[in-house]
Amino acid sequence: MPDLDFLFYPRSIAIVGTSSQPDTYANRNFLLPLLAFRYPGRLYPVNPKHDEVLGLQCYPSVRDIPGTVDYVICSLPAKSVPQVMRDCAAARVKVAAVFSAGFSETGDDEDARLEREVADIARSGNVRLIGPNCLGVHCPPAGISLAGDIPRDSGRVSFISQSGGNARELILAGAQRQVLLNKLVSYGNAVDLNEADFMEYFAGDAGTEVIAGYIEGLKEPGRFPRALRLAADRKPVVLLKGGLTAAGTGAVQSHTAALAGSREMWDVLCRQAGAIQVEDMGDMLDTLLAFIMLELPRGRRVGMVGIGGGASVQAADDLERAGLLLPPFPTELRQELKEFVPAAGSGLRNPVDVAADVYWDAASFARTAEVVANWDGVDILLVMLNATATLRRGVNTMKAQLDALLDVGRSAGKPMAIVLKSGGIRRAEEMGAEVEGGCLEAGFPVFRSCSHAARSIDRMIAYHQKTEEKS
Amino acid sequence: MPDLDFLFYPRSIAIVGTSSQPDTYANRNFLLPLLAFRYPGRLYPVNPKHDEVLGLQCYPSVRDIPGTVDYVICSLPAKSVPQVMRDCAAARVKVAAVFSAGFSETGDDEDARLEREVADIARSGNVRLIGPNCLGVHCPPAGISLAGDIPRDSGRVSFISQSGGNARELILAGAQRQVLLNKLVSYGNAVDLNEADFMEYFAGDAGTEVIAGYIEGLKEPGRFPRALRLAADRKPVVLLKGGLTAAGTGAVQSHTAALAGSREMWDVLCRQAGAIQVEDMGDMLDTLLAFIMLELPRGRRVGMVGIGGGASVQAADDLERAGLLLPPFPTELRQELKEFVPAAGSGLRNPVDVAADVYWDAASFARTAEVVANWDGVDILLVMLNATATLRRGVNTMKAQLDALLDVGRSAGKPMAIVLKSGGIRRAEEMGAEVEGGCLEAGFPVFRSCSHAARSIDRMIAYHQKTEEKS
Repeated sequence: MPDLDFLFYPRSIAIVGTSSQPDTYANRNFLLPLLAFRYPGRLYPVNPKHDEVLGLQCYPSVRDIPGTVDYVICSLPAKSVPQVMRDCAAARVKVAAVFSAGFSETGDDEDARLEREVADIARSGNVRLIGPNCLGVHCPPAGISLAGDIPRDSGRVSFISQSGGNARELILAGAQRQVLLNKLVSYGNAVDLNEADFMEYFAGDAGTEVIAGYIEGLKEPGRFPRALRLAADRKPVVLLKGGLTAAGTGAVQSHTAALAGSREMWDVLCRQAGAIQVEDMGDMLDTLLAFIMLELPRGRRVGMVGIGGGASVQAADDLERAGLLLPPFPTELRQELKEFVPAAGSGLRNPVDVAADVYWDAASFARTAEVVANWDGVDILLVMLNATATLRRGVNTMKAQLDALLDVGRSAGKPMAIVLKSGGIRRAEEMGAEVEGGCLEAGFPVFRSCSHAARSIDRMIAYHQKTEEKS
Repeated sequence: MPDLDFLFYPRSIAIVGTSSQPDTYANRNFLLPLLAFRYPGRLYPVNPKHDEVLGLQCYPSVRDIPGTVDYVICSLPAKSVPQVMRDCAAARVKVAAVFSAGFSETGDDEDARLEREVADIARSGNVRLIGPNCLGVHCPPAGISLAGDIPRDSGRVSFISQSGGNARELILAGAQRQVLLNKLVSYGNAVDLNEADFMEYFAGDAGTEVIAGYIEGLKEPGRFPRALRLAADRKPVVLLKGGLTAAGTGAVQSHTAALAGSREMWDVLCRQAGAIQVEDMGDMLDTLLAFIMLELPRGRRVGMVGIGGGASVQAADDLERAGLLLPPFPTELRQELKEFVPAAGSGLRNPVDVAADVYWDAASFARTAEVVANWDGVDILLVMLNATATLRRGVNTMKAQLDALLDVGRSAGKPMAIVLKSGGIRRAEEMGAEVEGGCLEAGFPVFRSCSHAARSIDRMIAYHQKTEEKS
């Protein structure tokens, strides 16, 4: 298994192409986030035109840096990259990430030749290469970040992304939803280090509990299946494949110059390895959230509580379609609910659809959830908060509901997940956004719809059931 | 065909169960919205305990109202409804909507008996009945509304909804997205007027250009297929079925006491009639938006412009999966783009993925869209604005982009749709929300993801192609 620790824990970083103007690509993407994360190693701006950049001494080239440089980020136009790579080789740099685009992905022969030249210089100079056409490494435990405006906390998910945009999206949206990263690598055209290297490394990396991947094409189709199986045998691997259609395959070609392969091949690969496929980046985030935050339920029997007859019908359809179960309540449980939930305006089945008066009273609503959670016929409690039903009452009603529900969740003895349904109504979405953080901080996963919740929870249960069968 | 004009254009309305406290169900759901919409007919609050309600003279019962009453809304507990219905019969009321719940949907025999009693009184007294367990009628052209906090404008969509919550959601979310209603009826348990009546009426209603339906179960399974075919032969009919799984069927039972039927039967019914099935309420709103706002493209060839390599790959997959086409650009078109879009950092295929510098410059980005729109190899222009890529620049960059794009759309000579992608990042969503309204007001549909856009656009094109083949 490759030891890529040198890649994620460099003791010094040089950024080639940074400048004294803060708002350049190189500064926004690399230097400013490293400063914001208080990167503890040595940091070397490189630009022959400046003596100093953002308070740091600046060097004309990588060769001129006095100490050793572990990691170089290159943010110059493509034509300048060969020289940078020669400098890296001369300075015995361990690894370089080439942010620069304009290589084989343009489809131009000359650009492809330039890419081969860069790869050759790196290889013969013993410099490992990430990219080109990528963002490189993000590793909060090492103080390395690709975004400055997120918390510095380290997480348990590591992400292999062929796309820089998807990498950035998972960093930002993940920070908002407590799906925090341990490591991430955006690797673009993958002329040297590729998806198989990263998959093998994350398989063995102690800091990585869940592996996520966005992959457009395999550089080593012979090696990757083994790496994937190795990883998926040890931890959940959640994959999104870009380029599953003819049109998508064409787009892959001009994005990372990768060969996308067929949908069927990919499906077989994932199934055989036991990797989990997701449909888009939102689906990936939901699934990661279920894996890292939801306590493992004993089974797939859901007890659901919410408001809205139509919404409850839809939720039931969503849950069953995803493979979850909604066992009917026994008479005693229905009787217990009837003591404080009026039959008129409520549906006292599973899902429970409470009348508005019960919904608006935090204690009554939470008690409904508690009665359902206490029944040993369900393995997991799912609560749907429908902001549309509290629009006129305002966000304090939702906050009170959640406070009471979190108490139920803490003492339930089985996992609880929350759905914040907003029906696409802006004010309802804003109310949901106001309460989401508190719920996540308390350790309960929050989803935007029942179908998203159901799909993610099902995958998490299925993964653990399969793992149990194997052992 | 039934003439239900009396139902949507009553000259007088009585609300039974209203009160002098504004914040009651009856006032929030019915009286206040009617006042906000400046309902032009006579409005009679009914409550024996009050002489006046919100400035209107209040009557002890429907019988005591001096003039004729066309429409009565009953918002009293279930057990009081038989007497209200007797009063309606005595006062020769044309139609009553019973908001009250606590009838057959509770599963209690006594409640079901009460429902039959109410239905019998209404029938023998020549009062048509909507519900019980419903919100009744919403008809902006008649000044009748179920929500006060939306614009008073009338639209071209009419919605048949067995669920009051879904009705409310479409009213509110639709108002935000310019999917305005012409008429809506929430009909709950459907003991008298049912889905077949409303479908037939909307088929012939001149104000209704598109019909939407949320249906849990058919009260007249023999009659509805004919009504549906009649309607779908004349205008688009977009349907969401609640209760397509065993769990959903159970939930339907306790929501509207309807028999949900099988998924297979429903699929056949829709296919034979030519009705369009959608997956959830959000999907319905997207599809309605495509039908009412998108100009009909000549074919399914999409020219797409956006930013983000991974996002473009995903978009291409989404479009092709939905059945749309992304024709490759000819060399001349690529050359034309290369004049102002640098090859490095861009993908000059279809979809076009522009480099950030081009993206941030509204004129260059709009010019990219214009060059693509001008190519006669595409029938529709799809532009993806990715707020994540303008997070640091702020919303004014997005506003400038949209202003320039709207000019392109206005002069393109072919339809344009916009995707506001936010990656689930809150600040990006807020930026999208700030610009969405202006785009919709200019007449260009806005979707939240490429998959939503593609699915909806495909359905709209497919409907018109089928209609053309038939004629």
